[in-house]
Amino acid sequence: MVDLPKDMENSSVSSDKPIVIEVTRGNMVESRHIGAAAVMKIDGSVADAWGDIDTPVMARSAIKPLQAIPLVESGAADHFGLTDMHLSLACASHNGEPRHVEAVRAWLDRIGLGEGDLECGVHAPTRLPIYESFLRTGAVVTAAFNNCSGKHTGFLATAVHKGEPTRGYIRRDHPVQQRLLGIYEQLAQCDLSRAPLGTDGCGIPTVGVPLRHMALAMANMANPVRLPEARAKAIRRIRAAMNAEPFYMAGTGRFCTRINGTLKDVAQIKTGAEGVYCGMLPTLGVGIALKIWDGSGRASEVAMATIMRHLGVLSDAQYDAAVTPPVLNVVGLKVGDIRPAASWLGTIAA
Amino acid sequence: MVDLPKDMENSSVSSDKPIVIEVTRGNMVESRHIGAAAVMKIDGSVADAWGDIDTPVMARSAIKPLQAIPLVESGAADHFGLTDMHLSLACASHNGEPRHVEAVRAWLDRIGLGEGDLECGVHAPTRLPIYESFLRTGAVVTAAFNNCSGKHTGFLATAVHKGEPTRGYIRRDHPVQQRLLGIYEQLAQCDLSRAPLGTDGCGIPTVGVPLRHMALAMANMANPVRLPEARAKAIRRIRAAMNAEPFYMAGTGRFCTRINGTLKDVAQIKTGAEGVYCGMLPTLGVGIALKIWDGSGRASEVAMATIMRHLGVLSDAQYDAAVTPPVLNVVGLKVGDIRPAASWLGTIAA
Repeated sequence: MVDLPKDMENSSVSSDKPIVIEVTRGNMVESRHIGAAAVMKIDGSVADAWGDIDTPVMARSAIKPLQAIPLVESGAADHFGLTDMHLSLACASHNGEPRHVEAVRAWLDRIGLGEGDLECGVHAPTRLPIYESFLRTGAVVTAAFNNCSGKHTGFLATAVHKGEPTRGYIRRDHPVQQRLLGIYEQLAQCDLSRAPLGTDGCGIPTVGVPLRHMALAMANMANPVRLPEARAKAIRRIRAAMNAEPFYMAGTGRFCTRINGTLKDVAQIKTGAEGVYCGMLPTLGVGIALKIWDGSGRASEVAMATIMRHLGVLSDAQYDAAVTPPVLNVVGLKVGDIRPAASWLGTIAA
Repeated sequence: MVDLPKDMENSSVSSDKPIVIEVTRGNMVESRHIGAAAVMKIDGSVADAWGDIDTPVMARSAIKPLQAIPLVESGAADHFGLTDMHLSLACASHNGEPRHVEAVRAWLDRIGLGEGDLECGVHAPTRLPIYESFLRTGAVVTAAFNNCSGKHTGFLATAVHKGEPTRGYIRRDHPVQQRLLGIYEQLAQCDLSRAPLGTDGCGIPTVGVPLRHMALAMANMANPVRLPEARAKAIRRIRAAMNAEPFYMAGTGRFCTRINGTLKDVAQIKTGAEGVYCGMLPTLGVGIALKIWDGSGRASEVAMATIMRHLGVLSDAQYDAAVTPPVLNVVGLKVGDIRPAASWLGTIAA
């Protein structure tokens, strides 16, 4: 078990300078996004911080790599002969592209289940060009298209392997969810018994955890030396899968896929709904967690890229190549930019 | 010409209490949106204000009703026999539903032009169910589907009627755009010659104007007694069309359509991109302009409804019926709410 750094709450290099991302149009700033981020080491010290890192934040999908740990640690991954592709899918908020959907269906078949066993619900692919090409085929959207279908198939594979009921695996009192809360509690070094509680988009429980602790969980995954060996080994395998098969944890045109495919062994990052981003930086031994308070995804990407550039793991050229293109209008003309504000950059000069 | 209230800059009832809209999940606030709003009278006095109403804001589509004035005032609407449906379309950010698209195509035909004359660009219907039912027909998206196609057809109708070139009507130096800037300047009582300038999503110029002046323009439309009679008459006809044909200025499931259809003669409201909302309240003789600083549409709707309820034009029951449903997850379970924060409501108690 990880030692709990008793004085962590007092070791803060907290900052009253928040993340500020601005969206420009013509010669003015049209909109602004405010956020917070923590960069943590495994000793519980704050390597960097911007804004309020002590208010609870729901990580949403940004901790899917953490939620994939039992799949490997339980032996289910080996038992079912799962590859990097499957482990990357277990960490995914995927686009619902044909390769994602086919891989999930084949995986369900391999564990003796079907799409009817997924309790994540059905939603259409969220990216319009992908949805459009799909609809033109005349096919019907099913649960495998849900961006969380890989994570849910991982939950089912673990339950099958451990002989637990598969029905109701999204319920808070099911062993699958209890195990995940226990792992989060250990890695984040934080008592979750009184944490704010909600239901995630895909039906599983989600808890409010301060960015300080969320980033500590990511640090313990980036540098798992304090964890039991079986858990550390599972984490290293999951991280390697995110780098090896980055398409399966997001997809075409996605920031997560670009970064994890480019920075092999150096970074494993994962987006979450409502403006959350988490990242593991094993070469630096730190974890990152950030939240844009208004829930904006366009801002969380730019904030993550800016912090990674600040930490020296993303070059200027890689930043330019990875960040979502600027603001375009309907005819494709560049009409603005999404960028870190000078007021924020001024607080993070290297 | 409207008198310019010389001391308007000093007559502020400005407020350091901003609009705060919160998005809850389970038992916590997951995300927050901050904004500002001005409620103005035609004498330039501030009836109500929250947050910073003096920073320039691009109105985007929220001033489409103002941009429809020349279509009526020039005589083009009468010349081409246009109805409330056409005038509502000229004010529209529509869903691209079949009735919208067919009406725009028929209107273009009536003025001797076609979709090739629209310079707004092509984008797919933005609401997924509408896009899905469209794609299943196998049809191809064209410029008439663009949410701004009605406004652009109005621009073209005016240009044709006045004998101006139709090509290049989106350019800043074209008479169509110069006329609009002149009207905005008159109604907002504000010098636009040094205003921040950008390009809107549909290619036309957009300028940065403080909410104080944007709301004053809306007040002058709600209560056009100080305007020349031809302009006042055009405005009253446009307002009536928004109430009479609310489907055509937005569409199925849209907040603008619900409010304008419910509050006939009492309110005419219009959304804009990046978290802007404008409204005219003729029975009160005031205009409203608001901006959510992060550009969020989910928050701008709730803010507009809250202000209208505060002003007594929207009942509690109408508020509940009009506001976008709460936060649902993929399986349709209610997992949260979008609501005005108590900290904001505390500043606006009647």
